[in-house]
Amino acid sequence: MIAVESLLNGNRLALARTLTQIENDTPEGRRILDDLFPHTGQAHLVGVTGAPGTGKSSLVNQLARYYRNPPDGSSPRRVAVVAVDPSSPFTGGAILGDRVRMRDLSGDPGVFIRSMASRGSLGGLAVATSGIVQALDAAGFEIVMIETVGAGQAEVDIARLAHTTIVVEAPGLGDDIQAIKAGILEIADILVINKADRPGVENTERALKSMLELAHPVEHSFLDQVAHHQLLSEQNLEEPGPTGEGHIWEIQLIRTVATTGAGVDELGLLIDQHRDHLKSGKGWSQREKYRLQSELESLIQAALVNRWRDSFPEERYFSTLELVVRRHVSPWQAVNLLLDGGQA
Amino acid sequence: MIAVESLLNGNRLALARTLTQIENDTPEGRRILDDLFPHTGQAHLVGVTGAPGTGKSSLVNQLARYYRNPPDGSSPRRVAVVAVDPSSPFTGGAILGDRVRMRDLSGDPGVFIRSMASRGSLGGLAVATSGIVQALDAAGFEIVMIETVGAGQAEVDIARLAHTTIVVEAPGLGDDIQAIKAGILEIADILVINKADRPGVENTERALKSMLELAHPVEHSFLDQVAHHQLLSEQNLEEPGPTGEGHIWEIQLIRTVATTGAGVDELGLLIDQHRDHLKSGKGWSQREKYRLQSELESLIQAALVNRWRDSFPEERYFSTLELVVRRHVSPWQAVNLLLDGGQA
Repeated sequence: MIAVESLLNGNRLALARTLTQIENDTPEGRRILDDLFPHTGQAHLVGVTGAPGTGKSSLVNQLARYYRNPPDGSSPRRVAVVAVDPSSPFTGGAILGDRVRMRDLSGDPGVFIRSMASRGSLGGLAVATSGIVQALDAAGFEIVMIETVGAGQAEVDIARLAHTTIVVEAPGLGDDIQAIKAGILEIADILVINKADRPGVENTERALKSMLELAHPVEHSFLDQVAHHQLLSEQNLEEPGPTGEGHIWEIQLIRTVATTGAGVDELGLLIDQHRDHLKSGKGWSQREKYRLQSELESLIQAALVNRWRDSFPEERYFSTLELVVRRHVSPWQAVNLLLDGGQA
Repeated sequence: MIAVESLLNGNRLALARTLTQIENDTPEGRRILDDLFPHTGQAHLVGVTGAPGTGKSSLVNQLARYYRNPPDGSSPRRVAVVAVDPSSPFTGGAILGDRVRMRDLSGDPGVFIRSMASRGSLGGLAVATSGIVQALDAAGFEIVMIETVGAGQAEVDIARLAHTTIVVEAPGLGDDIQAIKAGILEIADILVINKADRPGVENTERALKSMLELAHPVEHSFLDQVAHHQLLSEQNLEEPGPTGEGHIWEIQLIRTVATTGAGVDELGLLIDQHRDHLKSGKGWSQREKYRLQSELESLIQAALVNRWRDSFPEERYFSTLELVVRRHVSPWQAVNLLLDGGQA
C-alpha cells in the first residue's frame, strides 16, 4: 500500500510507484487516484506538441530550466514532464527514456520526468495520461508539461488535457507538412518556430501567419473549436460569449532556438500570460470542466464495454463473429444480434 | 434511396453518394452497408503510411498508374484510393482534396479517389474508413489503397484494415524520426525508402536494416504483434503456428523515387507477392477475421455508449459531472455513481 500522505509530502519513490500503478490501471492505482483527486486542480498543465524533427524535447528541457532558474529572480517552480510517445503502440515501452533526457536536471528534486508509451485505443492513452497528470498535480508540481509526438488524434487529446497548448514547428520539414499544419494550428495557444536559426525561417513564419489568418479570421477560441467535437452532450459547455475585448486570446507566434536557449525566456513569459488570461476570465474553469468531462466519458465508455464483456457469453460472441466472417450478417446486424439478444 | 444494384454495376455517382452516407453514418448509409456486405471480401486492401514529407501521396499515385498500365501487359486492375487525413480533427474537411490529386488519372473510370478527415475518438475514423472500404470493395475495385498521414494509433488502425501494410520512409527527415521508426516498423509488411535519389539514402537504409534486425530477430508475424494488442478476447485468433518454412514473410525493404517512377514496378510486384503469400497460407483469412473482429468491437463500443446515453437522464449526468469539477468525487467514483445508480 502506498501512503497518499508520503506522495503529497513530496516522496519521489512513492510518486514513481504511484505512477506505475496508475499507468497499469491497477486497483491500487485507482484507489490512490480517488484519494488524490481532491488535491488536484492546482497545476498549470502545458501541452507541447508538433511533428518529429521540430526539437520539442530540447525545448521542453529548456523550459524546465527556465522554471528552475527564473531569469527575473522569482522563486523556482516545481516542474514535471510527461513525455508521451504514441509511436510505439505494440512494444509498450517508451523509447525516449527518462534517464537519457535532461541529464543536467536529473539531480534536481524540483524536476520530475516520466515517459509513457501509447496504449490501445478507446482513449487508453488519454485516460492513463490524465491519471499521471493528476498524481503530479496532487504531488505539488506547479507546472506539468505534457509532451507528445505526432499529428492527429493524440494532439486533440492533449488539447483536452492541457490549459495551454504549444505547437512546435521548424523550418524546412518537407512538403506535405504544410497540409498538416492547418489542422494542428487549430489547437494551438502558442505557436513556436523552433530551430529559428535555420534557413527558411522567414518562409515558415510567413506560411504560418497566412494560415493563421485563414483559420482564425476574427478570433481564436478553444471552445469554438471543441464545440464541434464529440462529447456525450455539449449542452453544459457554456458558450464562450462576450467576455470583453480583453478576453480574446490571439495565437502567439514566437521564434526559438532550443539548442542555444534563444527565445525560451520569452516563451516562458507567454505561457504565464496565457495562464493569467485564462484565469482572468472563464477560460480556466471552462477548460477544467471540458477536460474532466472528456475524461469521465472515456471512463464511462471503458466501463460499459468491460461490463458487457464480463456479462456476455464468449461462445455466442464468437459464433456471431463467425457469421460476419462468412458474410452471413453485416457488422451492424451482428451488433444488433449481440446487444438485443436476437437469434443469430 | 440509392439502389445497391447501380452501385454494384459501377455507377460512380451512386458510389459517391453512398460513400457520403456512410461517412456521415446515416440510417441510409447503414442500410446500404448491410446490403453491400455480402459482396465484400474480394478486394486486396493495401495500407500506405508514414511520416509527413516522405512522399506517400506521390507513391500512391504511381502505384495507381502501375495498376492501370501494368508493365507486363496484363489486364488493368480497378483501383480505389482512400486518403485519410488525421491531422484535421476539428474542421471535418479533408485537406488533401480529391480533385487536386492525381489529375492525370481523373478521367479514368477505373480509378476512384476519396479523401476523409479524422473523426472523433472511439474508433470513429477506423469505423468510417472501414465502411468506405467495404463499399469500394463491393463496387468491384480490385485494389483499395488506404493512405494515411502520421505516426501513432492511426497506423495501427490501418494495419487492422489492410491485408498489406506499406510503411514509407525517406532520407534525412530529422533526428527524432529515428525513434518513431522503431514503433512503426512493427506494422510493416513492405518498407519503402522513397526519395531514394536524395543524399543520405545509404544511412537511412542501414539504420532501417539494423532496426529490423533488432525488432524481428527471427521472423515477422502480424499476429505475433497484434496478439498483444487490445481485443475483447484473443482466444479465437489462431496462433500463427508452423505453416511451413515457405510461409514466413520477411519484411521487404525497397527503394523508390515516386517523382520519376523508379522502383514502382518492383513495389507493385512485391505487393502482389505479399497477397499471394497471405493467400497460400492462413494469413489472408486471419487478417480478414482480425479486421472484422476489430470493426465489430468498435461498433459494439459505440452502440453501448449510445444506448446508455439515450437511457440516462442528462440532468443527473451533469450534476455528477459538477461533483467531479468541484473535486467532491473522483472520475472513477463518478463512473460508479452513473452506472450503478448510486446516490450522488
